[in-house]
Amino acid sequence: MQKIDESILSEVIQKRPINSYKGNYGRILIIAGSKQFGGAALMSTRAAVNAGAGLVTVATVPEKFTALNVDIPEAMTIDYNNSKDLKEAVLKNNVIVIGPGLGTTENTTDLINILIKNVDKQVIIMDASALTVVSEQNIDLNLFENIILTPHQGEWQRLSGLKIPDQTQENNLKKINSLAPNSLLIVKKHLSEIYYQNKVYQLISGNPGMATGGMGDTLTGIIAAFVGQFDYSLKTVSAALYLHSYIADKIYKKDYVVLPTKLASKIPQTMQKFACSKK
Amino acid sequence: MQKIDESILSEVIQKRPINSYKGNYGRILIIAGSKQFGGAALMSTRAAVNAGAGLVTVATVPEKFTALNVDIPEAMTIDYNNSKDLKEAVLKNNVIVIGPGLGTTENTTDLINILIKNVDKQVIIMDASALTVVSEQNIDLNLFENIILTPHQGEWQRLSGLKIPDQTQENNLKKINSLAPNSLLIVKKHLSEIYYQNKVYQLISGNPGMATGGMGDTLTGIIAAFVGQFDYSLKTVSAALYLHSYIADKIYKKDYVVLPTKLASKIPQTMQKFACSKK
Amino acid sequence: MQKIDESILSEVIQKRPINSYKGNYGRILIIAGSKQFGGAALMSTRAAVNAGAGLVTVATVPEKFTALNVDIPEAMTIDYNNSKDLKEAVLKNNVIVIGPGLGTTENTTDLINILIKNVDKQVIIMDASALTVVSEQNIDLNLFENIILTPHQGEWQRLSGLKIPDQTQENNLKKINSLAPNSLLIVKKHLSEIYYQNKVYQLISGNPGMATGGMGDTLTGIIAAFVGQFDYSLKTVSAALYLHSYIADKIYKKDYVVLPTKLASKIPQTMQKFACSKK
Amino acid sequence: MQKIDESILSEVIQKRPINSYKGNYGRILIIAGSKQFGGAALMSTRAAVNAGAGLVTVATVPEKFTALNVDIPEAMTIDYNNSKDLKEAVLKNNVIVIGPGLGTTENTTDLINILIKNVDKQVIIMDASALTVVSEQNIDLNLFENIILTPHQGEWQRLSGLKIPDQTQENNLKKINSLAPNSLLIVKKHLSEIYYQNKVYQLISGNPGMATGGMGDTLTGIIAAFVGQFDYSLKTVSAALYLHSYIADKIYKKDYVVLPTKLASKIPQTMQKFACSKK
Repeated sequence: MQKIDESILSEVIQKRPINSYKGNYGRILIIAGSKQFGGAALMSTRAAVNAGAGLVTVATVPEKFTALNVDIPEAMTIDYNNSKDLKEAVLKNNVIVIGPGLGTTENTTDLINILIKNVDKQVIIMDASALTVVSEQNIDLNLFENIILTPHQGEWQRLSGLKIPDQTQENNLKKINSLAPNSLLIVKKHLSEIYYQNKVYQLISGNPGMATGGMGDTLTGIIAAFVGQFDYSLKTVSAALYLHSYIADKIYKKDYVVLPTKLASKIPQTMQKFACSKK
Repeated sequence: MQKIDESILSEVIQKRPINSYKGNYGRILIIAGSKQFGGAALMSTRAAVNAGAGLVTVATVPEKFTALNVDIPEAMTIDYNNSKDLKEAVLKNNVIVIGPGLGTTENTTDLINILIKNVDKQVIIMDASALTVVSEQNIDLNLFENIILTPHQGEWQRLSGLKIPDQTQENNLKKINSLAPNSLLIVKKHLSEIYYQNKVYQLISGNPGMATGGMGDTLTGIIAAFVGQFDYSLKTVSAALYLHSYIADKIYKKDYVVLPTKLASKIPQTMQKFACSKK
Repeated sequence: MQKIDESILSEVIQKRPINSYKGNYGRILIIAGSKQFGGAALMSTRAAVNAGAGLVTVATVPEKFTALNVDIPEAMTIDYNNSKDLKEAVLKNNVIVIGPGLGTTENTTDLINILIKNVDKQVIIMDASALTVVSEQNIDLNLFENIILTPHQGEWQRLSGLKIPDQTQENNLKKINSLAPNSLLIVKKHLSEIYYQNKVYQLISGNPGMATGGMGDTLTGIIAAFVGQFDYSLKTVSAALYLHSYIADKIYKKDYVVLPTKLASKIPQTMQKFACSKK
Repeated sequence: MQKIDESILSEVIQKRPINSYKGNYGRILIIAGSKQFGGAALMSTRAAVNAGAGLVTVATVPEKFTALNVDIPEAMTIDYNNSKDLKEAVLKNNVIVIGPGLGTTENTTDLINILIKNVDKQVIIMDASALTVVSEQNIDLNLFENIILTPHQGEWQRLSGLKIPDQTQENNLKKINSLAPNSLLIVKKHLSEIYYQNKVYQLISGNPGMATGGMGDTLTGIIAAFVGQFDYSLKTVSAALYLHSYIADKIYKKDYVVLPTKLASKIPQTMQKFACSKK
């Protein structure tokens, strides 16, 4: 097992080549939100935009378009219940987040199925309600060629059948290898772990001020932006995870609770600091 | 009668244990808002999130979802006129605020009755319009096992029959003991008082810049977050009350009027200052 | 003619008595906004709240409730096309703004007529579209006992028949004395003038960075808050006018254009500075 | 070919005459946005207001009014599908932006045709989807007397038929002279170029942090404000282009990605700095 430390940030965050345009920095589709859960989609999107994603589209219900426009005008919106539009968006984007604030309804099952039918080599990041639905419906994760799973311990229990005390690194590794050997798994908790191709990485940062709604959605957005503009690798995902808790730790020095919106606002400056520190 | 002073903050605000998650910091349900009064729900929710509540759900009318999503994406929303959803939310949360911006309509009476039917040992915080409706409809407050009442002087007059000049500590104590002996009562005014189990605590801070719409809603949110993450006790509620006016006094040094949104934004930093000052 | 200078601010802005509540600081009703013009209502309301108004209610179209809730949660909202609600609000409030963003439609005429029927001694502040409608419909301004008119030069031309070059202090005074002798008139321009009971006051501050949409709406909100919490007098209105351009001049030192939202955000601090400078 | 450098800012940005009003600083109409693309309209509008435009009206779909009111209350709104209102707005404004976030639908073709029918000597700024529709429908750009085209390289390829490697200054000049000899063309890319009346100007600033959604919309808003308050000339448009990348370069020193909303917020201060540096 390898510990993830600060050095990963300068390793992964590239100084951008001078002659480049937004298409070079990822086309991200975020399938998120529902009538009752609007904030999750907002927080994930805000994080993706602030972490440098070139083009971000949110597939959600039209009732959430106004809030998205106000908070993150940089993102585009489509109605995920228009399956033609959703299908086109799946084909056009190269990183796809599914889950934040979808809720565990039939509609979420339908969205996952549309994704399965239309996805090819895009990287899928599956989070939150989508993970619960996959557990409940026994959906085969191997239908996705490139998939990142980001359960917290409770969601991982539902997915793996492993009770929280049994979620040792050994058991987790075994389990993910049988469930979805090609996937990259992040188990979110105090000192989160990443499993990928028989390697285990572990975070050594983070704090209890992060125990608040929206932290996970924010992480998902950062991962999407990193995969979209750098590459899909264990290192890149680890850097995204590290950046998230690195900023949270800075905020926690002064704030009792780490608010997701504050965390997101500090991403551009923190990334630049590490991009510039490169030799 | 005991004066509440600054020492209560370091006494109550706990440093969080490293290994914890959002479920440890309270599940708060805020039943608030109506077509005409949207801001009260927003201000109460923002305060609860900023004061560290783990999970916050707002039960309101769907017309307010967009404003809530924009301003406090960390909170979830449900429609309080969907009684199945409301009932489930009552069962699932352990601290329930009812009142800010509901208005004194029949609908508010219905919401209180749904709460009465479904509540068990949860802590109820009853504020604003809900208090007026309880007065008008003679609703028995003893139907709630754990209830915090937060009337200002006018609302307390309606509830107790005591005219403002007659609202002495002695009279208030007698009255609350006959009305709802198990409740915790806060009479909001210059130098607010707390009555609980025959004890009286009094605030010795606060300022006239706080005489503006939304101050009470903000207080309600802070109390909910404190009860949710610490405990339900006279000390904890007093600390919430003190924090509110402590921050207001800091702002009032520079600002003629203390705006609720500004007050809320300073909660995380103030809480951390006192959490860290503990031995 | 008297020049208005900085001394008026400490003269008018009172330190608040310690034992006071929001009802002491004015009940302001702002009748403003329409489907197409939402921003004017927002800017006027924000200014009123930031300038210390105790309770602010906005009567507008329901389509604007969400934007009002998001930007100024401290304000309440009612639908001005519900005439029962509007009538009640007119009776209950003691300062009433009418005009910002109403548009010059029949609906605005109806709103003015409801106001005329129900108003008593409240102070009316008439601005923008309401002034144009009054000109076009020849509505008798003497139907209002206490009215403040805030036309810019073009609106004053429509109201008075005086072309801009003919708007000398002498002519303006004569005209307002024949039109509405009890009213207080502000002619907004470079070095704005106030006419009241045969006195003329003139501003000697202000700057061309203020030539931007929303400046007038912001002024209207400040005047309402000042009249609501201090009194209705030439001095108080002059102080409101002075505060507006005083803050604008500070901003203009650094900003090429003075944005209304920035101006409003600086009101609480500026008021406190002058309240505290009193002997 | 001439390089655009910092000196252009003090040359173009005028200190405002003391006695002036908002009508002196341009009447800008921004035809932008659609159900799916709301952010582009917001970013363009915000930039125009912050760059000092006197009066800004946005013609869009009513679904976007709330977001516009919240984010830029200074701007007015109309429904572009009400052709009477749109026609009136075209006649009344002197600078008209068309394109950001319209989408490439039939509706956009209709809007362009209404513009063609009603426009006279107003300056048109054509951007984004409008450019694509013009290419697809072979609309004759010479129907506009004064038109600024702001394609990025891909849009310019569609418009000119020139593949990106063939977009040399010589070829571009030849092509624009045959397509629309009276137009002013900006080809947006690393080191953007401006073509006007056989002159070529080139930007020597800008950075890859600008490769994010909304950068172009922001530029469009600044150009509109500059033309509206200064004049329509190669110099003025060059200054707008320079200001945009000048601020972006300052932000990029600290931020990995240059967010459009942050860029817009810094316009008033940057403009004042250069207005004041004039002799």
